[in-house]
Amino acid sequence: MRAVVAPDPGGPEALVVRDLPEPTPGPGEVLLEVVASAVNRADVMQRKGFYPPPPGASDVLGLECSGRVAALGEGVTGFAVGDDVCALLAGGGYAEQVVVPAAQVMPVPEGIDLADAASLPEVACTVWSNAFMVAGLHADERFLVHGGSGGIGTFAIQLGHALGAEVFATAGSAEKLELCRELGAARAINYRDEDFVAVLKEAGGADVILDNIGAKYLQRNVDALATEGRVVIIGMQGGTRGELDISALLRKRGAVIATSLRARPVEGKAAICAAVVEHVWPLVAAGRVRSVVRRRFPLEEVADAHRLMDSGDSIGKILLTTGR
Amino acid sequence: MRAVVAPDPGGPEALVVRDLPEPTPGPGEVLLEVVASAVNRADVMQRKGFYPPPPGASDVLGLECSGRVAALGEGVTGFAVGDDVCALLAGGGYAEQVVVPAAQVMPVPEGIDLADAASLPEVACTVWSNAFMVAGLHADERFLVHGGSGGIGTFAIQLGHALGAEVFATAGSAEKLELCRELGAARAINYRDEDFVAVLKEAGGADVILDNIGAKYLQRNVDALATEGRVVIIGMQGGTRGELDISALLRKRGAVIATSLRARPVEGKAAICAAVVEHVWPLVAAGRVRSVVRRRFPLEEVADAHRLMDSGDSIGKILLTTGR
Repeated sequence: MRAVVAPDPGGPEALVVRDLPEPTPGPGEVLLEVVASAVNRADVMQRKGFYPPPPGASDVLGLECSGRVAALGEGVTGFAVGDDVCALLAGGGYAEQVVVPAAQVMPVPEGIDLADAASLPEVACTVWSNAFMVAGLHADERFLVHGGSGGIGTFAIQLGHALGAEVFATAGSAEKLELCRELGAARAINYRDEDFVAVLKEAGGADVILDNIGAKYLQRNVDALATEGRVVIIGMQGGTRGELDISALLRKRGAVIATSLRARPVEGKAAICAAVVEHVWPLVAAGRVRSVVRRRFPLEEVADAHRLMDSGDSIGKILLTTGR
Repeated sequence: MRAVVAPDPGGPEALVVRDLPEPTPGPGEVLLEVVASAVNRADVMQRKGFYPPPPGASDVLGLECSGRVAALGEGVTGFAVGDDVCALLAGGGYAEQVVVPAAQVMPVPEGIDLADAASLPEVACTVWSNAFMVAGLHADERFLVHGGSGGIGTFAIQLGHALGAEVFATAGSAEKLELCRELGAARAINYRDEDFVAVLKEAGGADVILDNIGAKYLQRNVDALATEGRVVIIGMQGGTRGELDISALLRKRGAVIATSLRARPVEGKAAICAAVVEHVWPLVAAGRVRSVVRRRFPLEEVADAHRLMDSGDSIGKILLTTGR
């Protein structure tokens, strides 16, 4: 089967399509025939050599996919060969076949195109687990989403809005701000010429902040919090080491939490996938939350897909299709 | 009535005993005749001018007391004049009388001396709210307590141990380490010549850290965490601004939380006091958790009490008694 690896870290040209042996599902695992995978920022980090796969995970890139169940490992129930599904992966999605623990396989939400479903697992699991399970966001809270026009950002805005939060989002162009508003943001902030801290303070502070910037925004996020607010850091595009004024955090009784989905153990991912199927899929099926798919590339054009990702101009998710 | 204020911030000599008007309980409040109050580090900060009372709180020092109910404000039920009680205060404890919201008044745990009960509300509410309500410490988790021989530390060790956690504690002398072990610490660490990070790493990491140091320990606490561990900062004896390596926190899916009890709204304190009466008082009555009282001073000798507190040599709580 064809699969994409990055044996020598570097730019998009470092991505190589190889012919690898077809994987075999072990006990509790499912073999999927991949229809589509999606490009995530973590894949870019992995390509550059900054984000090695967790121990035991595939060297093949790709944290999510959609496709058809091709074979069931020992003891797997609840799925049948031929089922249309999507899955959260620890790696291996940029390929024609992938093996995944059954607990990370989810049905395709009603009415969603099978290839497009590849755009859902990472964003849905990331947003649900971080904003709702980790930070405890609830209706009537104020929710600040950084990177509002990205894959996670667009989903977070919609999900927060659908569940009754007041969503603020940051983005860097008029087009992206307009998208944030269309998706349900009560207030879209252009970080290039507005101070998000001032905007949030004026509004009473953020109860939950979903942050992909890290160090550069660490103290500013704390400054933008409301009393008992929670910052959840899921990316470090603005660096890894930042100064924290603990007294400011203490005055707000605030929390700074940093998490990642990928390194969680299978049981953790299982709980998240189950919660996503229960809480998020109905909203997707009802059209209240959609994944914004920007463009599809054939698997062979993976370098072009990463070039588009690297350009920073991408609104919504980029898919890789296998043609199967 | 006699009461202690610090009109000009400074050393222990800045504390002045004044004659103030007797307070009157408003709706939902209780007037207490104070038998004893206890000295907390926050009082020292307030004396030095670093920790002004929250808006609306008394200028009189003192965050906890024991005594007798002297009068009930409108609408107060559940207490009668003459009841022996203790209370969590937003201020005003260093006095012969104090007014407090009824929801912050608690019964004296069975078998506890009325004056000694003044040593319980702050430590019990601080430890329960931070370690259990905020950080979610549960049985079989590893719990690191910094400042293990202090008022909060001694209580945290015992409560963690009684509830099934494996407790590690830091302290700075052989005598203090021995106390930590007596109170239930599985491992007492002399921070002067041992590296607590190395000790915790060797043991598998701390699930919850209760920290009173702040900046100086910020990154070291993160380094000592286990996966999904939580640092709760309740003091900043080691400074307020520290550098945080967010990538280290992210790899552990960890949380840094900073809180204070004093500034919480009355409803928050009410929930904490109710939980303390339910979960902690039975352990105190059973002798499984005790407050370590070091010494009692008459209210007039409040400066000497603060001198002892300032010396850093104090093991356990220091009480101020009114003679009532």
